[in-house]
Amino acid sequence: MSDYQAPLEDMNFVINRLLDLPNFALAIGNEDASEDLLQAVLSEADKLASQVWSPINATGDQQGVKLEEQGVKPADGFKNAYQEYAQGGWSSLYFDEQYGGQGLPFSFSMPVAEMMNAANMSLGLCPMLTAGATEAICAHGSDTLKDIYLPKMISGEWTGTMNLTEPHAGTDLAVIKTTATPDGDRFRIKGQKIFITWGDHDMTDNIVHLVLAKLPNAPDGVKGISLFLVPKFIVNADGSLGERNDAYAINVEHKMGIHASPTCVMSYGDNGGAVGYLIGQPHQGLSAMFTMMNNERLVVGLQGVGLSDRAYQGALEYARERVQCAAPGTKQRGAIIHHPDVRRMLMTMRSLTEAGRAVAYATAAQIDLSQKAQNADDRGLAHKRVGLLTPIAKGWITETSQEVTSLGVQIHGGMGFIEETGAAQHQRDARILTIYEGTTGIQALDLVGRKTLFDQGAAMADLVQQMRDDLDLHGDSISSRRLWLLSEAVDGLESSYKMLLNEAPDDVNLAGSISFDLLMLSGYVCGGWQMMRSAALVATHESDVFKANKLATVDYYLDHVLPRFEYHRRSIVSGNESVMAIAANDL
Amino acid sequence: MSDYQAPLEDMNFVINRLLDLPNFALAIGNEDASEDLLQAVLSEADKLASQVWSPINATGDQQGVKLEEQGVKPADGFKNAYQEYAQGGWSSLYFDEQYGGQGLPFSFSMPVAEMMNAANMSLGLCPMLTAGATEAICAHGSDTLKDIYLPKMISGEWTGTMNLTEPHAGTDLAVIKTTATPDGDRFRIKGQKIFITWGDHDMTDNIVHLVLAKLPNAPDGVKGISLFLVPKFIVNADGSLGERNDAYAINVEHKMGIHASPTCVMSYGDNGGAVGYLIGQPHQGLSAMFTMMNNERLVVGLQGVGLSDRAYQGALEYARERVQCAAPGTKQRGAIIHHPDVRRMLMTMRSLTEAGRAVAYATAAQIDLSQKAQNADDRGLAHKRVGLLTPIAKGWITETSQEVTSLGVQIHGGMGFIEETGAAQHQRDARILTIYEGTTGIQALDLVGRKTLFDQGAAMADLVQQMRDDLDLHGDSISSRRLWLLSEAVDGLESSYKMLLNEAPDDVNLAGSISFDLLMLSGYVCGGWQMMRSAALVATHESDVFKANKLATVDYYLDHVLPRFEYHRRSIVSGNESVMAIAANDL
Repeated sequence: MSDYQAPLEDMNFVINRLLDLPNFALAIGNEDASEDLLQAVLSEADKLASQVWSPINATGDQQGVKLEEQGVKPADGFKNAYQEYAQGGWSSLYFDEQYGGQGLPFSFSMPVAEMMNAANMSLGLCPMLTAGATEAICAHGSDTLKDIYLPKMISGEWTGTMNLTEPHAGTDLAVIKTTATPDGDRFRIKGQKIFITWGDHDMTDNIVHLVLAKLPNAPDGVKGISLFLVPKFIVNADGSLGERNDAYAINVEHKMGIHASPTCVMSYGDNGGAVGYLIGQPHQGLSAMFTMMNNERLVVGLQGVGLSDRAYQGALEYARERVQCAAPGTKQRGAIIHHPDVRRMLMTMRSLTEAGRAVAYATAAQIDLSQKAQNADDRGLAHKRVGLLTPIAKGWITETSQEVTSLGVQIHGGMGFIEETGAAQHQRDARILTIYEGTTGIQALDLVGRKTLFDQGAAMADLVQQMRDDLDLHGDSISSRRLWLLSEAVDGLESSYKMLLNEAPDDVNLAGSISFDLLMLSGYVCGGWQMMRSAALVATHESDVFKANKLATVDYYLDHVLPRFEYHRRSIVSGNESVMAIAANDL
Repeated sequence: MSDYQAPLEDMNFVINRLLDLPNFALAIGNEDASEDLLQAVLSEADKLASQVWSPINATGDQQGVKLEEQGVKPADGFKNAYQEYAQGGWSSLYFDEQYGGQGLPFSFSMPVAEMMNAANMSLGLCPMLTAGATEAICAHGSDTLKDIYLPKMISGEWTGTMNLTEPHAGTDLAVIKTTATPDGDRFRIKGQKIFITWGDHDMTDNIVHLVLAKLPNAPDGVKGISLFLVPKFIVNADGSLGERNDAYAINVEHKMGIHASPTCVMSYGDNGGAVGYLIGQPHQGLSAMFTMMNNERLVVGLQGVGLSDRAYQGALEYARERVQCAAPGTKQRGAIIHHPDVRRMLMTMRSLTEAGRAVAYATAAQIDLSQKAQNADDRGLAHKRVGLLTPIAKGWITETSQEVTSLGVQIHGGMGFIEETGAAQHQRDARILTIYEGTTGIQALDLVGRKTLFDQGAAMADLVQQMRDDLDLHGDSISSRRLWLLSEAVDGLESSYKMLLNEAPDDVNLAGSISFDLLMLSGYVCGGWQMMRSAALVATHESDVFKANKLATVDYYLDHVLPRFEYHRRSIVSGNESVMAIAANDL
């Protein structure tokens, strides 16, 4: 079972150099956000991740969770590990100082989230969901709700959950059946929700459920959904905990991975109705939920980066230790790391992980800019860029994390298939990433629909122009052959989204048929763009080894990963004729 | 949990039309091998697969196997399901009639193996390994050993195992430590073997272990390895079972998938030495083992086809039943099968499965021809073709089966990650396919080394010429745009292996760096070739629906799958510079 160490050098490089921290801190008006502070934050977080969270990752996978009479019982060590996280202030990094947050840039929380999830994704999901619920309350809650709940959630004393899905309503939330009935200034919630991550546990005194439900006489469809806050224990006026609310986990799912994260079936109102409080306006629940879901989606992409990195570390260690046949040009048996095909796998893992990290963190920086840039135009531009990059980052990174974690198993050979090695767990855990918080298909539809067709390609055009500007500025940091390839890839992205704009209006099935390819093409090109920038910006790095490794990794990405753009481009050009050719009944 | 039905129509099409059964039967001098016989065989096998083996697939996954004091205890129903298989004569299909076999073409066993493995791969492994051991005894055993063991193994009354790997010796068998000491006309075997599939069980009275071991004073390395037959129960002269041999399963592994297949640690000779009998000549064990391993590798490719097909069937059923948002151009909620992105996933699964089936069965036909063609030249040509196609079929199909079974999970959305749905099991089971019987890296090395560099590309040139001849003959069965693309892909295969031939002699790491890409490129091109042939040969098919579906599936493959060749071609052109750029110690 491999250990985990956070890749601090690359994390620091991406934020300090690739995101240009000094200028970035100025742009968002946060002078405290210095290189020194970042380094201190990351090295402390690494200790918690590697020394406390990581050691219980495999045991958590083996034990899973239990639903007992008193509720869900997490695996051994999880309660303590969570409490160390909360007490260390890690849940408050980027939240408002008014409610006890530390007011750091959201970008600073990226490497922290990456390492906690790499160390133990099952546990990492608990703060991730709590942050999502906290953001929704920050953005849409009344002052009363904020005063009562935010300090406890930001401090990590209470955790939060998101309750959207019902058995018949997943992607399509319009048809949820959970109801909310007025009861004085509160509501009574009744219904069943599934796939509720950390829906119950004993790690904290209280749990704050955000629940989508329908008010009486609500309009049909997604415009009739409201959002409610339903605490596990009702909070008294003085802030103390009152009676147990009518909200219970009635089952936990048996899953392929993240065994230590309880995925609950939640039942609300079996005994008269759970007490709930309206968040935001009636019937505006879905948009309130989606405000926050964008950040969640990026963090899921980041979970992909984290698991990929951990899989890489494990595979690298094994490849160094496992002695088999002599490598080419040698006569002695040696470690398999000397075999070119093993090196190919390691470099594929490494380059996809570094490219994914760069794309994810760069998207996070745009989130900060969209909220805190000094002038409104800059905020608007960043807001558009976030909208475009979020489905790409979530969709592409989580898809490549399937490949990277699978390569982690492959490098272990037969041992990779044996659970005690740990490589298999990373692949099993990663499998949920392309599914939750919106499947890859949903990300792809978002990209082609709301983010491209809706604005007639304006945000895409901006992105392509930005890439070309950066190629002009930094293109000499890579060889001319690679520069040519990257330019061709950017051209391929442009011609592809333009084909979408031209043909989708006359062909109802085109967008959906090519959406996945456009998403993946965009991802590989964004990765190439950030890797090219990395080659330029690593030039002044103080470590010669880091510099040489980064340049070689960029080269590998451009040589052996980026060419995938051409596959996706050609698939897009082929359109939808053969996608829909067989009638659904004849398949 | 989805049911399984064998895809009889496509199986019959591939053998009857694509392999041209009447002419094929003539060529191998087997007039009994008729279309009617094939149909009868397949429809009987389907009953056993779908009604007996498939229903215990999920329960086997949940229960796994237990190592008890008396040995390994399979999951419920496995003993009965195995015995129905043996009693039905399914283990004897293509074996020599002299020992009780049915003398059918090896090709006829392909669809049977595909469906048994699709229905229950954990159980399918038992006859697969038995067949491998049987083939090794057929080819290399003494008449005495043949007379004693072959009838019982061919009838399925006894099963067989292959014992190669030791903890420190996987791909590199040169360093095995198991010893064989002469003891009269027998030997005493001592040592420990790992990863022994169905190494112990109570489904039959006896188990025949084939074990690699070293004789005293054996030469170093792979030329000092001998092969021994070690029965679980020693067989008396009259054929009755004698005393328990000193060969025991001492552990079973906890694996990511194929839970119901016992993967044993076997210990030989803890109590004085297990009785063993030499198979073939001293020190020739490895080549005896590899004779048979070629067929095994093809069958593993076929397991990939089977799991892919089953994953497709499950995903299709779910996509038909799961109702979510309205599809493009419709206003009502409907089944997700009407969404283009879901259709894309289904068509990717379907086209890869059908292409894989065609490539695997076509390779099997070459195996028959290599053994039974009327003249020696034809046998020689077929032998070379088998050598070339086997690593491609094993490597490429098992790699694409990772994608197909993962898409099966993806189509199920959140339910795919929940084990009770069954989709996750297919992906977990499939994960071993790129590892056992030689990893993809080993298949790729075999392809670039022994199968291409060693004969200076002669077999590759033959294959490319065959494809071009077939394009001339049948190219008008696909559109000119697609024909152009397929020709470009064949050109890409040719330029890639020629680059290997030109550059590998001066660059020790080139072959290993590009081997995986060349394998995958070869696979996609072989798939395109067989799909193009399918489009031509389906023209006279009696079912209009089958014909239309096949043509649409071929189009989809050429539009959306084949373009991957260009990614691999470009990665090959990039060579090994960036693959090996970072020193092993700096990674």
